[in-house]
Amino acid sequence: MIKAAVIGATGYAGQELVRILSSHPQVSIQALTSRSYAGKKYEEVYSNYSHLDYSCEEENIEELAENCDVIFLALPHGVTSKAVNENILSKCKIIDLGADFRLSDVETYEKWYTTHYSKDILKEAVYGLCEIHRDEIKGKRIVGNPGCYTTCSILSLYPLVKEKMIDVNSIIIDAKSGATGAGRGLSLPNHYCELNESVKAYKIANHRHTPEIEEQLSLAAGEEVVLNFTPHLMPMDRGILATCYANLKGNYSYEDIEKVYKKYYENEYFIRLCKKGTFPETKWVKASNFVDIGFTVDERTKRVIVIGAIDNLFKGAAGQAVQNMNILFGLDEKTGIDHVPVFPA
Amino acid sequence: MIKAAVIGATGYAGQELVRILSSHPQVSIQALTSRSYAGKKYEEVYSNYSHLDYSCEEENIEELAENCDVIFLALPHGVTSKAVNENILSKCKIIDLGADFRLSDVETYEKWYTTHYSKDILKEAVYGLCEIHRDEIKGKRIVGNPGCYTTCSILSLYPLVKEKMIDVNSIIIDAKSGATGAGRGLSLPNHYCELNESVKAYKIANHRHTPEIEEQLSLAAGEEVVLNFTPHLMPMDRGILATCYANLKGNYSYEDIEKVYKKYYENEYFIRLCKKGTFPETKWVKASNFVDIGFTVDERTKRVIVIGAIDNLFKGAAGQAVQNMNILFGLDEKTGIDHVPVFPA
Amino acid sequence: MIKAAVIGATGYAGQELVRILSSHPQVSIQALTSRSYAGKKYEEVYSNYSHLDYSCEEENIEELAENCDVIFLALPHGVTSKAVNENILSKCKIIDLGADFRLSDVETYEKWYTTHYSKDILKEAVYGLCEIHRDEIKGKRIVGNPGCYTTCSILSLYPLVKEKMIDVNSIIIDAKSGATGAGRGLSLPNHYCELNESVKAYKIANHRHTPEIEEQLSLAAGEEVVLNFTPHLMPMDRGILATCYANLKGNYSYEDIEKVYKKYYENEYFIRLCKKGTFPETKWVKASNFVDIGFTVDERTKRVIVIGAIDNLFKGAAGQAVQNMNILFGLDEKTGIDHVPVFPA
Amino acid sequence: MIKAAVIGATGYAGQELVRILSSHPQVSIQALTSRSYAGKKYEEVYSNYSHLDYSCEEENIEELAENCDVIFLALPHGVTSKAVNENILSKCKIIDLGADFRLSDVETYEKWYTTHYSKDILKEAVYGLCEIHRDEIKGKRIVGNPGCYTTCSILSLYPLVKEKMIDVNSIIIDAKSGATGAGRGLSLPNHYCELNESVKAYKIANHRHTPEIEEQLSLAAGEEVVLNFTPHLMPMDRGILATCYANLKGNYSYEDIEKVYKKYYENEYFIRLCKKGTFPETKWVKASNFVDIGFTVDERTKRVIVIGAIDNLFKGAAGQAVQNMNILFGLDEKTGIDHVPVFPA
Repeated sequence: MIKAAVIGATGYAGQELVRILSSHPQVSIQALTSRSYAGKKYEEVYSNYSHLDYSCEEENIEELAENCDVIFLALPHGVTSKAVNENILSKCKIIDLGADFRLSDVETYEKWYTTHYSKDILKEAVYGLCEIHRDEIKGKRIVGNPGCYTTCSILSLYPLVKEKMIDVNSIIIDAKSGATGAGRGLSLPNHYCELNESVKAYKIANHRHTPEIEEQLSLAAGEEVVLNFTPHLMPMDRGILATCYANLKGNYSYEDIEKVYKKYYENEYFIRLCKKGTFPETKWVKASNFVDIGFTVDERTKRVIVIGAIDNLFKGAAGQAVQNMNILFGLDEKTGIDHVPVFPA
Repeated sequence: MIKAAVIGATGYAGQELVRILSSHPQVSIQALTSRSYAGKKYEEVYSNYSHLDYSCEEENIEELAENCDVIFLALPHGVTSKAVNENILSKCKIIDLGADFRLSDVETYEKWYTTHYSKDILKEAVYGLCEIHRDEIKGKRIVGNPGCYTTCSILSLYPLVKEKMIDVNSIIIDAKSGATGAGRGLSLPNHYCELNESVKAYKIANHRHTPEIEEQLSLAAGEEVVLNFTPHLMPMDRGILATCYANLKGNYSYEDIEKVYKKYYENEYFIRLCKKGTFPETKWVKASNFVDIGFTVDERTKRVIVIGAIDNLFKGAAGQAVQNMNILFGLDEKTGIDHVPVFPA
Repeated sequence: MIKAAVIGATGYAGQELVRILSSHPQVSIQALTSRSYAGKKYEEVYSNYSHLDYSCEEENIEELAENCDVIFLALPHGVTSKAVNENILSKCKIIDLGADFRLSDVETYEKWYTTHYSKDILKEAVYGLCEIHRDEIKGKRIVGNPGCYTTCSILSLYPLVKEKMIDVNSIIIDAKSGATGAGRGLSLPNHYCELNESVKAYKIANHRHTPEIEEQLSLAAGEEVVLNFTPHLMPMDRGILATCYANLKGNYSYEDIEKVYKKYYENEYFIRLCKKGTFPETKWVKASNFVDIGFTVDERTKRVIVIGAIDNLFKGAAGQAVQNMNILFGLDEKTGIDHVPVFPA
Repeated sequence: MIKAAVIGATGYAGQELVRILSSHPQVSIQALTSRSYAGKKYEEVYSNYSHLDYSCEEENIEELAENCDVIFLALPHGVTSKAVNENILSKCKIIDLGADFRLSDVETYEKWYTTHYSKDILKEAVYGLCEIHRDEIKGKRIVGNPGCYTTCSILSLYPLVKEKMIDVNSIIIDAKSGATGAGRGLSLPNHYCELNESVKAYKIANHRHTPEIEEQLSLAAGEEVVLNFTPHLMPMDRGILATCYANLKGNYSYEDIEKVYKKYYENEYFIRLCKKGTFPETKWVKASNFVDIGFTVDERTKRVIVIGAIDNLFKGAAGQAVQNMNILFGLDEKTGIDHVPVFPA
């Protein structure tokens, strides 16, 4: 059994991770920590756990590293880069669900976020987008688990960028997310009556997932990609839909594009390509690790429109973190996360 | 492996059953049938299954009985009582998610529903409310799987009725259900904009789950129980909350009542009693087999108020059906249905 | 023109009042006050007002009384009873949307709420349930505007209680409210993902609207009424549905009951009696001052079930406050509040 | 009083029109017609009208033209172009809420829709986007009332296109709509549990509002505009948000762009420009005729992002139709449609 701890277990992503780990056949949960709820029963924080005797502990990563094979961190950015060190890494694997180990470029990180406190460790971290970096993840000590919007956006566009079929300066990603993406912290915009029955864009042209998408797509393109990413908040709990637009560099047909998506994804269990004429809807991936991708060619505008859908808490956070753990520990990648999406929900 | 078939696999309850069975470690799905979608891929009906190669077949129960250990029926009432016969029962177990084998009293059935076409078989059927009839279920050939409202209502009141602590003529059950309870069939009241952002009562004083609750509570009481049951439709997908009122027959304290609930339910894995001062919310049982129950004594009115919550598609239908299967086949009752509730969802 | 001010204009009820007053043909808004937002543009608090040049002022009731004909108070309980005095009342009318002037019995008030600071004024206050106390309201200086749950509950049961057709000790009111009833203040239970897709009961057997319903129904009955009132929170913005149960004192038919509802309500513009076999749904009264009432007789249990529906912010708060103002100032009672309910919304 | 009739009064847009007209101070409703519900009380179709004695009549436009000053048509496309003729137009004004008189180019109409049966009349019809074509509307006999998506999209981009500040070949409009946009007709995708808690794109690259947006923007640009328009369905009742992207043709600052929006819209009562750094949300325009517009310049990509929000049933259909009527009859344009948006709702 893999001995695992979750640091920051009481946010929505942390809780989803606890839920997944609690039924993972190869995992034994060693500790759940929470700064706000230390000393409380986990069921007092999340009553869906009232049949389980879990508790929230104080956060002590050094100590946990002694007894754990893997530690998942679900902490605010800037906090993780302070919390991780060589001593910890020498004892156990780290999978960070936050932003601190996602961007390989420190300068970009510090421009969009804050000071980075473990630049050396950043160098060895791997970006845990499993379908793209699987081989690099194996053997690593620390994984930067991708963001929710970024997982959906990068996977939607990767084959086209990699195969240079689109003008990378023309990319526009219009993304829609459920409210769990905004977390459990109280704020007026996330108050029920304020968020319900309305839709809005936010952090227009300055959302922090932008550089993460750009870095990964630049890597794939072999040239710098600068793009527009606009997140929107939907009145629903879970799910991200990314509607991606790009100018085609050639006179490509639907079948040409389908061919490259199959090339990269046909054998990827968690990526499901939609049949021609059908497109993803967030309801079909709920509470699952699947990424649904569909596309069309607009012959009038010579653009391709690619649509991707994921569950932001699952493939966009906790599920992918466990997928990374499975890779790190040599398990079948699907272990413990091969759930049929829950519907209707 | 238990070879199982689902008849009527394309309704919401049928689909939930397929979802649960597909990850049940002791089950192999032999066939999914559908009158409306025979010949289609299951993923065309439910795209959450696009990674699985399931198909909808024509319904042929006689033939399936040859190759299956258990057949789940999710058909409209009146249809099942025609479809089942001695030949089928001699070959495989039947678990009926419909209403045809729930009421032991034929007259009551025919008054509230329609003609019953297999009265002999009805006599041997058992009412599959696992926590109450577990021992009678073992060894049976046919199980009438309880209704959603009824599961929640009966379990909420059973200890008080059994122990004669309440006046059984004073029982009022005010129940609230999510829209999956209304099924997938199209109708104006279930059109999105008609159901959204509104609440209503329906089938007031004449809902068909009433006699089912009454028969079971009468059995427990040892006297005839006639009660009020009022269902309400909520703007949400899943979940039932039953708010139950009854006059106390004595000067019982909270602790007196707690004692009897513990007597009956303390060792029931799927029943979770709320701590004093806390009450169920449907969100804490979503996509799970749990029944959460809380209560209070109103000293001003000498009434007890008991509140129960379940997921109508899971414990209220498909999950309990699998629980019944586990009992019939001698498996650990939790096998394949021991899911932590999904939250937020 | 009636010169009006709103004290506490930035809660949901306050805002609804501002919305109604802004289009009332006989009202000129003199001031909107807010403790939290004084000095801010009203549109910064509610962007639906971005075409209007309203501002939030500091609260100074004494000063406003000099220039206003009527002051609406939408303040927390306990605050209003301190804020009102003889000097103010000698200059302008007061309509209090809070709880401080609803209960005529001080002892009851202080038991369920807090110390009352203006007991003398309480004596002259009238309970502003327009359809029942219309004649007493005329000429009064101060009106206690009824609560949302209470408006719906009392109007639903009044004719039956008044005509002594039901056993007043058997009354159970199971009420369901949209989330605006919980106000704009932040709290975890009202965070979007916590409230969405779930239903719960709260303040079971101890909600503060209980004594208000009891006092009014006792008054109508001519005897003390003690009842059960259980509020539930629904995942929707607006609307209250009250499902009321009571034992009939005689062998009354539907038509007997219809007759008394018609006796009291046939000429009430804002009360709409449902046709036999139909029942209220909250969607049909949204953003309006209407009260829809339907009922049935359950011959099996000898109970009557009455269902009432209102918009909690409109008839349950701001709309009724304006209705009271219309009565106080001798206007047609419908003036400015005769809106067809908005649907779908 | 203007005598008005509504043909097709039982769809969502028709009903919204009835609601608005019923409180319009200068309108007297002569008739409501419905093919499906002729002979029924209007309240049987929409119970929010149970206090009003409206009925649904058979459709007889010729006869109504004799007695009406204006007839509003809310019929499916292809039906209206058959129903209108010179005789009718010689007697009363026609405002068509459908698509038949929106596109001036017959060929485009027939390519995207169906055969047009009154091409001569089409020539004299005016496109009723009030803020842009106000002067042309005056005196006309027939108005093609704009579509919901188109109203929002065109008004969002018009100043930039008119002033040639953007590359018209780079326009991408990613639009999000509430479910009322899909109408009241039953279909599985609009069944509550299918639409709730999910988001999807639909009619990608082939939605019929595309040519309408293109024709109007081409007219403004003085050159042919071909663009991408992608509609999305949101789990909410009302509201459209259009997120529009375009490449700037020069090095324009926020203030440069603000200047042209003010040039065109500063005096438009129903267009509200958001302050710098703030953006529209559909909740702030609900049940109102307002169009909220906000924008930002992305200096990294040299694109402008403009976001517009309307209520699809009000400004996107019924409200604008009444605004057109007000123009046609020389009334103050705001008459009867100057509602503060309803919030929360």
